[in-house]
Amino acid sequence: METTLDCVPCLVGQAVDAVRMATDQPDEQYRVIRRVLSLLERMNFNETPPHMAAEIHRIVKDELGVEDPYREVKEQSTELAQRIVAKFEHVVAEATDPFETTLKLAIAGNVIDFGVGVDIDTIETTVEEALGLPLPYHEVEALRSAIEQAEDILYLGDNAGEVAFDRLLIQLLPTEKVTFVVRGGPIINDATRADAEAVGLHNLVEIVDSGCVAPGTILEHCSSSFRERFRSADLIIAKGQGNYESLSAETAPIFFLLMAKCPVLAQQLGCRIGEILVCRPTGGAEHN
Amino acid sequence: METTLDCVPCLVGQAVDAVRMATDQPDEQYRVIRRVLSLLERMNFNETPPHMAAEIHRIVKDELGVEDPYREVKEQSTELAQRIVAKFEHVVAEATDPFETTLKLAIAGNVIDFGVGVDIDTIETTVEEALGLPLPYHEVEALRSAIEQAEDILYLGDNAGEVAFDRLLIQLLPTEKVTFVVRGGPIINDATRADAEAVGLHNLVEIVDSGCVAPGTILEHCSSSFRERFRSADLIIAKGQGNYESLSAETAPIFFLLMAKCPVLAQQLGCRIGEILVCRPTGGAEHN
Repeated sequence: METTLDCVPCLVGQAVDAVRMATDQPDEQYRVIRRVLSLLERMNFNETPPHMAAEIHRIVKDELGVEDPYREVKEQSTELAQRIVAKFEHVVAEATDPFETTLKLAIAGNVIDFGVGVDIDTIETTVEEALGLPLPYHEVEALRSAIEQAEDILYLGDNAGEVAFDRLLIQLLPTEKVTFVVRGGPIINDATRADAEAVGLHNLVEIVDSGCVAPGTILEHCSSSFRERFRSADLIIAKGQGNYESLSAETAPIFFLLMAKCPVLAQQLGCRIGEILVCRPTGGAEHN
Repeated sequence: METTLDCVPCLVGQAVDAVRMATDQPDEQYRVIRRVLSLLERMNFNETPPHMAAEIHRIVKDELGVEDPYREVKEQSTELAQRIVAKFEHVVAEATDPFETTLKLAIAGNVIDFGVGVDIDTIETTVEEALGLPLPYHEVEALRSAIEQAEDILYLGDNAGEVAFDRLLIQLLPTEKVTFVVRGGPIINDATRADAEAVGLHNLVEIVDSGCVAPGTILEHCSSSFRERFRSADLIIAKGQGNYESLSAETAPIFFLLMAKCPVLAQQLGCRIGEILVCRPTGGAEHN
């Protein structure tokens, strides 16, 4: 998915958030925002939004010497997510279709994204609302069937905290066939290995990192070992908007699970903001 | 009022809107947005937001050779505002305090601001809601009394369309003492002389332009004749956020009438977004 004009102010806004996370010195904040504006001015707008975000956050971290500005936020987010998940476990236990209910929870957990400024207090309400929303029947059934047939499943995580919701879904999958994928290093509030381990995912499945430090999965920036696993997997479950933006044009057996959080994406997917979705790559029609 | 970090993404967003108004050629849009980013990078963040917006919109207009990208929008806005005002005239006629009701209408009309992306369909509802909101009693009474005592009233307009609402309020003022002020040239959807005349204001009061082409009143950019009138007026009624941002630190007998439309301003004024306000300069306490 290409970056659009509407992504530019949003990327600047993300940089403002990150700069504030990294320092409370106004002079430093303005200095780094100027560097971000200079970078954006020279950027290739044919790249995907996660590609541009990666470069922006690299500059913020390098200039301010803070490797992980969101570490505290991620820890709070993990702690909160685990509390919320505990409250919703009975919903799964009582569900007539636990797979579909857990799928909704896993997607709703995607709302825990400090990268676009979601208010932490509204998460629980949003999760409850998401449980009441419909999922596309045919895509859910296609995913159910793909899981039954798959021998090698990659599950691409998105945010810290959200992984506690992913854990609920992964518990219903054939865990011996599942590998959970985290980012190659800290980027915004995205899940790294530490965030996945914080919710115990390493006790359930293998965890690998993509080698790519971006809020998405930019294949050409990933490690060669990850790219090999990506190409050999017969099912890829990819969480969140960043993975969609970076992989939507790939020809691969991907199911995206996400909540549409911005007007650019909502327009591309033909849905409303806040809708929960199961969908496949625009370029990958051969793997129905 | 100084520009804050939060103003930066908003200014970029305004530039995106303006570029789209001026051309539908993506290459041109991206070229001009790069120029805007370069300008912002070098800008003095101690200037007010209207000062920065003026420079940004100057670049958009110069680069694309379009002197008034919002002309059509302003004409539609004027036409719509006149229809809405006609619907609310009976509310004024039936009001127990026509001055206060008209004050609310004039402030509510400030919502007609395409500069921050307000949906045209919601205007009527917003006006109705604004009529139900309270205004600060002491400020309303202070303004009523200032009007009674004033010999020379400057009324600084804000947006096209909104001037149809201003007309309702101006009809209740001693019109022979009132001068209506428009921008020195087209800037976003702000009212110029043509927009004020389109609602018949020239039949009621004298109209002058400030000489300043900015979405606000930056005194050092105004004509010397306007500055003289500004300094000699014994009451200045200033509409909208841009006039507030550019004049809030002045020592002058100003009453600002506005709706708080952004979190930066709402925080500075200690109010909620969407609140309607009558307030005075932060630096002008001596003229109570």
